[in-house]
Amino acid sequence: MSLMKPSTRSNVQPFRVMQMLDRVHRRRREGKDTLMFCAGQPSTGAPEAVIEEAEIALRSGPLGYTEVIGDREFRERIADWHSATYDVDTNPDNVIVTTGSSGGFVASFIATLDHGDYVAMPTPGYPAYRNILESLGAKVLNLRCTAETRFQPTAQMLEELPHKPKAVIVTSPGNPTGTIIDPEELERIAKWCDDNDAVLISDEDYHGMSFGRPLATAHQFSKNAIVVGTLSKYFSMTGWRVGWIIVPDELVTPIENLQASLSLCAPAIGQAAGRAAFTLEAGAELDAHVEAYREAREVFVDKLPEIGLGTFADPDGGLYLWVDVSAYTDDSEEWALRLLDEAGVAVAPGVDFDPEEGHKWIRLSLCASKEDTIEGVRKIGEFIKK
Amino acid sequence: MSLMKPSTRSNVQPFRVMQMLDRVHRRRREGKDTLMFCAGQPSTGAPEAVIEEAEIALRSGPLGYTEVIGDREFRERIADWHSATYDVDTNPDNVIVTTGSSGGFVASFIATLDHGDYVAMPTPGYPAYRNILESLGAKVLNLRCTAETRFQPTAQMLEELPHKPKAVIVTSPGNPTGTIIDPEELERIAKWCDDNDAVLISDEDYHGMSFGRPLATAHQFSKNAIVVGTLSKYFSMTGWRVGWIIVPDELVTPIENLQASLSLCAPAIGQAAGRAAFTLEAGAELDAHVEAYREAREVFVDKLPEIGLGTFADPDGGLYLWVDVSAYTDDSEEWALRLLDEAGVAVAPGVDFDPEEGHKWIRLSLCASKEDTIEGVRKIGEFIKK
Repeated sequence: MSLMKPSTRSNVQPFRVMQMLDRVHRRRREGKDTLMFCAGQPSTGAPEAVIEEAEIALRSGPLGYTEVIGDREFRERIADWHSATYDVDTNPDNVIVTTGSSGGFVASFIATLDHGDYVAMPTPGYPAYRNILESLGAKVLNLRCTAETRFQPTAQMLEELPHKPKAVIVTSPGNPTGTIIDPEELERIAKWCDDNDAVLISDEDYHGMSFGRPLATAHQFSKNAIVVGTLSKYFSMTGWRVGWIIVPDELVTPIENLQASLSLCAPAIGQAAGRAAFTLEAGAELDAHVEAYREAREVFVDKLPEIGLGTFADPDGGLYLWVDVSAYTDDSEEWALRLLDEAGVAVAPGVDFDPEEGHKWIRLSLCASKEDTIEGVRKIGEFIKK
Repeated sequence: MSLMKPSTRSNVQPFRVMQMLDRVHRRRREGKDTLMFCAGQPSTGAPEAVIEEAEIALRSGPLGYTEVIGDREFRERIADWHSATYDVDTNPDNVIVTTGSSGGFVASFIATLDHGDYVAMPTPGYPAYRNILESLGAKVLNLRCTAETRFQPTAQMLEELPHKPKAVIVTSPGNPTGTIIDPEELERIAKWCDDNDAVLISDEDYHGMSFGRPLATAHQFSKNAIVVGTLSKYFSMTGWRVGWIIVPDELVTPIENLQASLSLCAPAIGQAAGRAAFTLEAGAELDAHVEAYREAREVFVDKLPEIGLGTFADPDGGLYLWVDVSAYTDDSEEWALRLLDEAGVAVAPGVDFDPEEGHKWIRLSLCASKEDTIEGVRKIGEFIKK
């Protein structure tokens, strides 16, 4: 009997953040104290208004398939929110609801890229881009982002690429870096993409979470861009698996056709209840979470240098802090596993985000409470001193 | 400014069933009477036990990411159900929860097929296979299924293919045909796949719904097969978007790694509540639905010949009836659109399921009540007579 042979393209990197999260789940089931800084997962749940809507939806009749591109009313809420937040004019017909932003990336990549096409992405950056792209036969061009450009790409970097990309990905606030791209630079990148027939894919999953800097949407600068958003982060609804993409007219029908086959539709309850995420009532609750992330950020920024971790990307927003641990290890994965085992502190090893330099870095999440964050830094400090 | 150019691979067929369903939604919003036979969507909702569990889950803390391959307890329930139903020994470690079976197909195809690989699928068959496969660069080999083999493929057909397939898809009960493959033939196909290094992908989405014939799982005949299942059909939970694949050991890690990037995890509430779908209480409720499908089938089988639609695949199970309308049209899509406009009856045009012969066929769903089904047949009869 033959042994099953996985495809070549299935040979993607493991997503160590999620493996670490699985370890956290396991430790907690076993009753072991664990502080969680590995995942970009708010420790808060959905806003009360959303939960109440979900309760109503559960009892209002069968939760059947929604329209393929999403419940019309939900798409209107997203469009209104996007228009009002950025002073743009977003049509609900261009909003496609997806199964988390994960589903949005898969659909966007298939809709715009053919086998062998080049795609530029920030490095360090979100590993799912690379994994999905490689499994689809696209070729990744790394935009090496360092402290020099506040860990964000520039139009100049695009100019210097060895191959013309068919798509360019920008993530702001960054994952794993938390830095926000300057609106002027985003505008230059959008213009470069328009001039060079490249699709700008703007991952705006962490919008709503700035500690001061202005956050621009790519649609302020080009209607050709694909804007990706989600209920998972600012809206604190990770497990609901609801996101969206806002796409140019030309992509609506191709993506609708693809989505019918890739997913049929996004989860119905998350769409029905998700309408309430855009209410003022929910907003007040969610903005309070952002204050908590800001507090966690302050703790890290103040205290990490005291324990010997003085080199990091100072986050402008989002949920993460990208920290250089090269003084203590050149294998951040092994270091993170030991930190979890010995100190009960879960962090994300940098290798997920940067295949070349990530072994010197870890990513910390701002999602824990202030008290837990203080305690986490203390435990990491003890671990380092041992 | 450049116009956005969709990728070549995004040029998939529209999924007319879902477009028809969108039309049904729109007509109903406009207050127009509409009988719905187009989608494979139970008109019933989730079992009461599931809804109660969902209510508890909503208030039991944040619905965060589950483990990438799914909530452990939910996977245990699926494994136990699969083992008990088919007298096999299914390990929860081989069960991967997916976002509907749609997510299961995407992951299975990427995990087993490289660009340019051949895949054999039943024709008529579910269009999402073809669309996803083509968008991934795989090449589809049609297994032409007619009344001669009760609209199911045979091992002999595989033997006669012009190219060696890397994977073979079987769907039983069939979509769109509702026929059930004989266990002996499924065994021959499984053996052919094992002997020829092909992956058998057994779409068992419509299991639980037989009107008499025995339903075998592919795992009775080969542990190398991928078995695909869902909460959408028998379990009456379409909009929840929860399915699963049961995969050979060699595929667990590759698919876990892929899933982390493709989806992060399936919806948390559907997994938490879905545990209750496998209880005796839910089963009693769900088996009553199958009785209703059987009644709808009886109505169609008795009355379609009376209105001049005497050629169809007589369903052994599942949710559909595949009906020859070639006496009245050679464009089943145009015919279906007129039927909806003029008679308020929504059916699925056959072109979705069969690119070569589908213009002569339509698919009817067994999901409406007996009364609506009688009324639907009457209206189709009137439409034909006009």
